[in-house]
Amino acid sequence: MKAKREALVSLFTAMREGKVDEDIIDLLLLINSIRGVYTTSSCSGRIGIIEEPALGAKPLSRWLIKEHHPIEFEEAKAALKNAEKGLIFLKSQPPIFHVIAEDLERAKKLHELGLASGFKYTTFKVISKRYLVEINATEYLTAPLGRDGKVLVSDDYLRFALEIGNSMLRRSKGRLPRLMENFKRLREELGEDELFYELAEEFGIESAV
Amino acid sequence: MKAKREALVSLFTAMREGKVDEDIIDLLLLINSIRGVYTTSSCSGRIGIIEEPALGAKPLSRWLIKEHHPIEFEEAKAALKNAEKGLIFLKSQPPIFHVIAEDLERAKKLHELGLASGFKYTTFKVISKRYLVEINATEYLTAPLGRDGKVLVSDDYLRFALEIGNSMLRRSKGRLPRLMENFKRLREELGEDELFYELAEEFGIESAV
Repeated sequence: MKAKREALVSLFTAMREGKVDEDIIDLLLLINSIRGVYTTSSCSGRIGIIEEPALGAKPLSRWLIKEHHPIEFEEAKAALKNAEKGLIFLKSQPPIFHVIAEDLERAKKLHELGLASGFKYTTFKVISKRYLVEINATEYLTAPLGRDGKVLVSDDYLRFALEIGNSMLRRSKGRLPRLMENFKRLREELGEDELFYELAEEFGIESAV
Repeated sequence: MKAKREALVSLFTAMREGKVDEDIIDLLLLINSIRGVYTTSSCSGRIGIIEEPALGAKPLSRWLIKEHHPIEFEEAKAALKNAEKGLIFLKSQPPIFHVIAEDLERAKKLHELGLASGFKYTTFKVISKRYLVEINATEYLTAPLGRDGKVLVSDDYLRFALEIGNSMLRRSKGRLPRLMENFKRLREELGEDELFYELAEEFGIESAV
């Protein structure tokens, strides 16, 4: 699969540059080692504060703070000092994996795997002849905090919303081990991809997962 | 399609009982009149205040207020007086349509149609041999307001969050006319379903859309 080769080169390059969330490196290596599937953009889940110039203008958004682990009240409060313009939101998002499958059979297995691992919002799209499966969960928080540099919530509210956002993140990340186990089983079923191991060696990536 | 027959009976019965969101009745009739597709659960978009006993316990949730159109500050404040137990959230959700397609070709067209109509979070799943396409958008708000009967936000914040939630709802509902136009075009392409018109007549539903 030429497309898989390109995706692997892209992933291994990003890993060498430290650009891949540490929390999911093993999972990404595992998934990519399976024959007939590969990952594209994935995220280990995050919580942060974002400024959106106007509703819907997502590409122009600016994160004031963004972490892949729970954040403290003090960090959030400090980040809010940098708010300037637009709507300010506290956002919490679960881990999300985008996995391309070569055929419908694999796509269906990935879909079931996601659901069985507790990622209840797993879906797919067909793009050209490939199947893009999105392994996603339901724990999303989008809480407005203020506008145009002005914070409109009390410290107590910020603590409260952070507590909920952090809980959601812990909860959804808590499913990653189960997802890992299920992918190991899938690898036994579908087999390993030689290409993955070859390229991992070329790039000096530790591929045994 | 036996499954389509059952779905249509279910829809027409619900319409006669006044249980279907008025805002989307025409759209639902239009979609169901197309050969090889039919709708299951759909919603015209909503904003409301919900109590969730604990994170994730969705079936036990209780809406304090829920409307398919923007809500006023006074309505929200009054509804909050009934809060008792659990986390209290203001939630705003876009219109969402679940459409079953008989085959992959139709599913792909539905998927493209959803995206082309501005419903950027349109995806699908394969269930047995059917394709369930979810036409969904990105305008979701989930803002915590309090806990266990206690409201932890000021009136100003409630007005502010409501303003954002209401804007999101208006924005996503504003795409419904475009969706309607695109489905009309799809019907010209895929053809009409005799079964739909027969059953509509039996149930006394005005089916010309």
